[in-house]
Amino acid sequence: MDMKTKNPKLKDQPLSPDLLRKMNAYWRAANYLSVGQIYLYDNPLLKKPLKLEHVKPRLLGHWGTTPGLNFIYVHLNRIIKQYDLNMLYVTGPGHGGPGLVANTYLEGTYSELYPNISQDERGLKRLFTQFSFPGGIPSHVAAETPGSINEGGELGYSLMHAYGAAFDNPDLLVACVVGDGEAETGALATSWHSNKFLNPVHDGAVLPILHLNGYKIASPTILARIGREELEALFRGYGYKPYFVEGDDPEKVHPLMAATLDRIVEEIRQIQSVARRQGFKQRPLWPMIILRTPKGWTGPKEVDGLKTEGSWRSHQVPLANLAENPAHLRLLEKWMKSYRPQELFDASGKFVAELAELAPQGDRRMGANPHANGGLLLRDLDLPDFRDYAVKVPGPGSVKAEATRVTGAFLRDVMRQNMTARNFRVFGPDETASNRLADIFEVTDRAFMGEIQKSDTQLAPDGRVMEVLSEHLCQGWLEGYLLTGRHGFFSCYEAFIHVVDSMFNQHAKWLKVTRRISWRRPIASLTYLLTSHVWRQDHNGFSHQDPGFIDHVVNKKADVIRVYLPPDANTLLSVTDHCLRSRHYVNVIVAGKQPELQWLDMDAAIKHCTAGLGVWKWASNDEGGDPDVVMACAGDVPTLETLAAVEMLRQQLPELKIRVINVVNLMALQPQSEHPNGLSDKDFDVLFTTDKPIIFAYHGYPWLIHRLTYRRTNHDNLHVRGYKEEGTTTTPFDMAVLNDIDRFHLAKDVIDRVPSLGSRAAYLTQVIRDKLIEHQQYIRQHGEDMPEIRHWRWGVKKMRKKASARQ
Amino acid sequence: MDMKTKNPKLKDQPLSPDLLRKMNAYWRAANYLSVGQIYLYDNPLLKKPLKLEHVKPRLLGHWGTTPGLNFIYVHLNRIIKQYDLNMLYVTGPGHGGPGLVANTYLEGTYSELYPNISQDERGLKRLFTQFSFPGGIPSHVAAETPGSINEGGELGYSLMHAYGAAFDNPDLLVACVVGDGEAETGALATSWHSNKFLNPVHDGAVLPILHLNGYKIASPTILARIGREELEALFRGYGYKPYFVEGDDPEKVHPLMAATLDRIVEEIRQIQSVARRQGFKQRPLWPMIILRTPKGWTGPKEVDGLKTEGSWRSHQVPLANLAENPAHLRLLEKWMKSYRPQELFDASGKFVAELAELAPQGDRRMGANPHANGGLLLRDLDLPDFRDYAVKVPGPGSVKAEATRVTGAFLRDVMRQNMTARNFRVFGPDETASNRLADIFEVTDRAFMGEIQKSDTQLAPDGRVMEVLSEHLCQGWLEGYLLTGRHGFFSCYEAFIHVVDSMFNQHAKWLKVTRRISWRRPIASLTYLLTSHVWRQDHNGFSHQDPGFIDHVVNKKADVIRVYLPPDANTLLSVTDHCLRSRHYVNVIVAGKQPELQWLDMDAAIKHCTAGLGVWKWASNDEGGDPDVVMACAGDVPTLETLAAVEMLRQQLPELKIRVINVVNLMALQPQSEHPNGLSDKDFDVLFTTDKPIIFAYHGYPWLIHRLTYRRTNHDNLHVRGYKEEGTTTTPFDMAVLNDIDRFHLAKDVIDRVPSLGSRAAYLTQVIRDKLIEHQQYIRQHGEDMPEIRHWRWGVKKMRKKASARQ
Repeated sequence: MDMKTKNPKLKDQPLSPDLLRKMNAYWRAANYLSVGQIYLYDNPLLKKPLKLEHVKPRLLGHWGTTPGLNFIYVHLNRIIKQYDLNMLYVTGPGHGGPGLVANTYLEGTYSELYPNISQDERGLKRLFTQFSFPGGIPSHVAAETPGSINEGGELGYSLMHAYGAAFDNPDLLVACVVGDGEAETGALATSWHSNKFLNPVHDGAVLPILHLNGYKIASPTILARIGREELEALFRGYGYKPYFVEGDDPEKVHPLMAATLDRIVEEIRQIQSVARRQGFKQRPLWPMIILRTPKGWTGPKEVDGLKTEGSWRSHQVPLANLAENPAHLRLLEKWMKSYRPQELFDASGKFVAELAELAPQGDRRMGANPHANGGLLLRDLDLPDFRDYAVKVPGPGSVKAEATRVTGAFLRDVMRQNMTARNFRVFGPDETASNRLADIFEVTDRAFMGEIQKSDTQLAPDGRVMEVLSEHLCQGWLEGYLLTGRHGFFSCYEAFIHVVDSMFNQHAKWLKVTRRISWRRPIASLTYLLTSHVWRQDHNGFSHQDPGFIDHVVNKKADVIRVYLPPDANTLLSVTDHCLRSRHYVNVIVAGKQPELQWLDMDAAIKHCTAGLGVWKWASNDEGGDPDVVMACAGDVPTLETLAAVEMLRQQLPELKIRVINVVNLMALQPQSEHPNGLSDKDFDVLFTTDKPIIFAYHGYPWLIHRLTYRRTNHDNLHVRGYKEEGTTTTPFDMAVLNDIDRFHLAKDVIDRVPSLGSRAAYLTQVIRDKLIEHQQYIRQHGEDMPEIRHWRWGVKKMRKKASARQ
Repeated sequence: MDMKTKNPKLKDQPLSPDLLRKMNAYWRAANYLSVGQIYLYDNPLLKKPLKLEHVKPRLLGHWGTTPGLNFIYVHLNRIIKQYDLNMLYVTGPGHGGPGLVANTYLEGTYSELYPNISQDERGLKRLFTQFSFPGGIPSHVAAETPGSINEGGELGYSLMHAYGAAFDNPDLLVACVVGDGEAETGALATSWHSNKFLNPVHDGAVLPILHLNGYKIASPTILARIGREELEALFRGYGYKPYFVEGDDPEKVHPLMAATLDRIVEEIRQIQSVARRQGFKQRPLWPMIILRTPKGWTGPKEVDGLKTEGSWRSHQVPLANLAENPAHLRLLEKWMKSYRPQELFDASGKFVAELAELAPQGDRRMGANPHANGGLLLRDLDLPDFRDYAVKVPGPGSVKAEATRVTGAFLRDVMRQNMTARNFRVFGPDETASNRLADIFEVTDRAFMGEIQKSDTQLAPDGRVMEVLSEHLCQGWLEGYLLTGRHGFFSCYEAFIHVVDSMFNQHAKWLKVTRRISWRRPIASLTYLLTSHVWRQDHNGFSHQDPGFIDHVVNKKADVIRVYLPPDANTLLSVTDHCLRSRHYVNVIVAGKQPELQWLDMDAAIKHCTAGLGVWKWASNDEGGDPDVVMACAGDVPTLETLAAVEMLRQQLPELKIRVINVVNLMALQPQSEHPNGLSDKDFDVLFTTDKPIIFAYHGYPWLIHRLTYRRTNHDNLHVRGYKEEGTTTTPFDMAVLNDIDRFHLAKDVIDRVPSLGSRAAYLTQVIRDKLIEHQQYIRQHGEDMPEIRHWRWGVKKMRKKASARQ
């Protein structure tokens, strides 16, 4: 590896003086339109002297990063045309919204998608007015922005989105601008390692452009202040070959940028052609650019005597309070005129032809690249029939299976059947095997471009299982993959999915907004399988126990959110198939990986999942009449404990009429007015009764069930058990006991709430108390659960024996 | 900078053959005890041949990382003694719990804190049995582990905790073992940059030890497979001077590690003494260690013919299924006997004296270092009287103020009065000034050890404001700072605090568990000020709008959680003062930074905050009787809109009796059974009535209020407005309108729910409809809110004028 700090020698200058002049003019146009969007309400071509009435009353937008983004855009346009590149532009500093809008306007995409923003003075006025204005468009790069797959909201996810887009798109070159502020985030700091997962044979390329403009909102950035030697070492250490492009004189920086990009395109093509000819031999040293230009470049040098260009003062609006400060108004006019708009737009307001022709054509325009509107490219998965993977269930509770392992076989064949289409990947933080999905490794491996040693297994450069110990990377890659029109599946320990809470937020918001944008096409859903869940983190203990991701998810818009709690293997299969076919949702599936009793055969499972929730008649004894109590459950462990409690109650108190309801689709509990999957009030009342006690054993935090059902008629009689933050390293059953959701507590809950059960109930209460003490003593002596606890019916028989012994 | 890849020449070998032998024996003892904890139920000294009955039925624990942790521990012990170091051990690979328990047992701390785990055979049996056993201790490094400040749960936070501990502890050396799995997380990847915030003059030192054992659960790690040159470049790029210690032969690795540590201690002392003599000149190149040793070192080389030592197969329990596989039982015995326990423990089970004396004494033992039990060192802050900062409020709604700016002045003086104590820092992602807390900069600066340029302001090596564009780092540093007995304050944009959801989880769990550990002392609370909140992210748009952190927080144990929504500046002052005095909580304060109307003078504010919630009589007209409607509010914007709605209703419908209740302490809404701050049911019924409609305007997602109050008598009449995921770049008031929480919608909610209000109500409904249309038209034309909206009473007068014009 070349550790010298000089740039490799660049080719001869590729820009003729004429091209240099035109590119700079194009850049001026983009800058002019950017400033115009931030400031102007009228007089878009400054044909009249600028007056206060032409300026927006509220100045909302970010100038600082924008000229750099524009500079990069015009240079990428050149190489797209020169090399006929298929290129995507991912904007890390997403608050530079005006720049991306300006460029997609100049290249024509914007007016095609939004015809009212026409290529004339009227269109320019509208372009300016709509920006960051009520009824208009957001101030950041957003779903509304053509060519964008990266919301300019929370920072840190650009580079992982870029890599996600490049996977399995061998023809694609994803340019990703990373801001030096964003670079301080954890998510971005680990994203650089994505190059260990990108295969030059069948993936595209990512060109990271670290844009050092030196400042955040109020402070310098770390990477701008560590010295060039450390900076270069850092990126060499990350496995890149950094090219520096630095300066503040456009006349000098343009040629340097152009020559660097030529060199880089050559290198990328070389890397790809060697790899594609010879097959993958070793991880290449991908090039990247470190671009150091002033923040607020070409903006006011000083405002009120304070340095502005090249300072954090350029971050948002360099000139403010124009109404109170006429000098600022004049400064704004001077600034805007410095771009010489009359040379850039003709009298009608149309961008002059000699500049417009610098932009690529058709789909090569970065605002029009179909990969940025992935739904356009989306093809259905070729799915095997999930029923073929069914566990044979001769009767409820008669066999055991590991639910996720069963689904693993299904996913293996999903992978197999879409190997040639190359549009399906599985993601997870080093847990695919731990989560019992290892069958997938029969048909593919973990992707890895690092050194592979002989003793390694299931690890290969062309693997399609993406494992890295970073939930951020898993989520970000998957988002990038989905947003560009492919499919994926993310399995994760339930507790640690909270690591990406905020990434989920941004993605859910993206889905909500894009549903309303006519030119955006639906993409494949983002499906989580949360396993190693709270009830079976008895071995890892308290730190690994948190079922709250569901709570977090259901705060987002109902029309993009689905939550499933399949109680066994066949229901998990059915739900998984459904999720892989769905579009434009976030699906959360929670299911255990341990060997557990199975309840439903495949036909029953499909019926149950289709309904979302329903009475389990075989477990109930209320046929033909009203029940005395409804026992509801959602989640595999709560279902087992509920059924065991029901068995106990039915045998001990045969006169008690119990209705058992299992909930797979959690959203069915909500009123229809709140969620499209919601059960009608009438149906809900029929199922849950209007006046009988409901004992609800729920997988997660109990109050969520109250939140979902507080408007239902019988809510006052609802009593929910769930996880209440009690747990440690103990036995699986003890986890249930610690949170009062075990069969004994549930049975006791029924006894306490159904009046006049008589002396047998009092006796059963005593037995339950004894059993709980016995349990405590047993586990503290033996370190594992009483063997009988593993069977749902055991407790009853044993108790009956004991009871008869006492009588 | 020296970019060569060789280690600098090390001093002569510091270990005499005798010391080497003893240290290796000490390490064997730690390894023996680690294996014993994972496997043995009885026969702790293997005095009898090992039988199945001596082995635990469930084998739960992680061996892979443990021998490395033990190796480091014994070497740190040596340098502590040799140089009389004040050292903390932060364990990144926290699943290596057995190692830390073993070492704190060997040094004696464990038995002092847990006398039943005595220094004899009985104690050894208990030590083994309790590990990862019901009623025992967790399998990971946890709050129960002496010397720990870093829960071995979710990975990624060790290094930020280490730096947090080192800030303002000039005497402290924090050794931090970073696992190469953990190193893949985003949080850890950006943590390395913490060296730009550590001042050698008045902070302690952090010694990162990157432990490359090569594997995660199932795969190799990235950093183990990028080649030495890139690895070294990466850490030089991060600003460290890496020392490599590599090998698998203990005879060779011991001397290398010892010599390296000697060299490093010398370097750290040199750095510190120069800086402390001359003052801070430039950021030093802090040393670090890259330790490459086999995973599961000294464990079984092969199991069932598969490579185990030096492979991912060592990750958890290398030998399993002992009951079914007698060969494994024999292998276990052989493995344990390879440590020659009879040489390590005497017949009584006591650790032999010549080894025991290798450990440091008293508080120098890493398990006994008081910094790891920060409550021991905690001193109260010297707080100014918050009442001195009060905004003068002659009458409700008569003046405006920026609530956070007022509190900024208070925080400035908190900082000032504790400057010499050096036990208070403020944390935030580059937003201290943006969040209007800039007064703090009158007394201190932002901390920065990177290059500082002339044009920089409020930036200095000894600044006490910690700003970095990483919520992870802010949170992690603050946790480390609090856990070691100091105080802090974290201000953040409300939406992006979700970035640290999972870190909050782990900290809240730590607080919950430590409340029950007798030797742990309470620490200062972790206080968040969430500002730039959902209602005033109109300019940044939808991506910046998320009030769900409260929902996330309240899922944790009530006894460690507090949530405050002060409606104005004086209540924010009172709440902030309270939070800074509190112990062992997580406090969440949500308050706006914009100029807003003020409601309470200081006396009223204190009274109101003390009660947590209460009737605002001056806004109500139900005195001496029952109200027709209760209008409740929580949060500054909802309070303004509620009061404006009340004004409108009172003027238009004077016969309507309205009771206004404001909620500051959100937890007061919960029943007392659920939260210690909860209002009694009786008080709740008196305030909220048992049968009148309640219109509740709430800052966040509306269903949270239902969740908190569903057990209250009058819950069925509760109607909540809040944020329902509607928003974009628009005006502030339009944000309220989009979510139906504005004054007009609230007034309409009252009209709809109070029967028989007659024709004036019908008329008012029509006026409200007109006003909403007028609003829409106005903002789309002017880009800002109608001026009258800024005043709570305006709408009414204007409407009255309009109404009389119509009549």
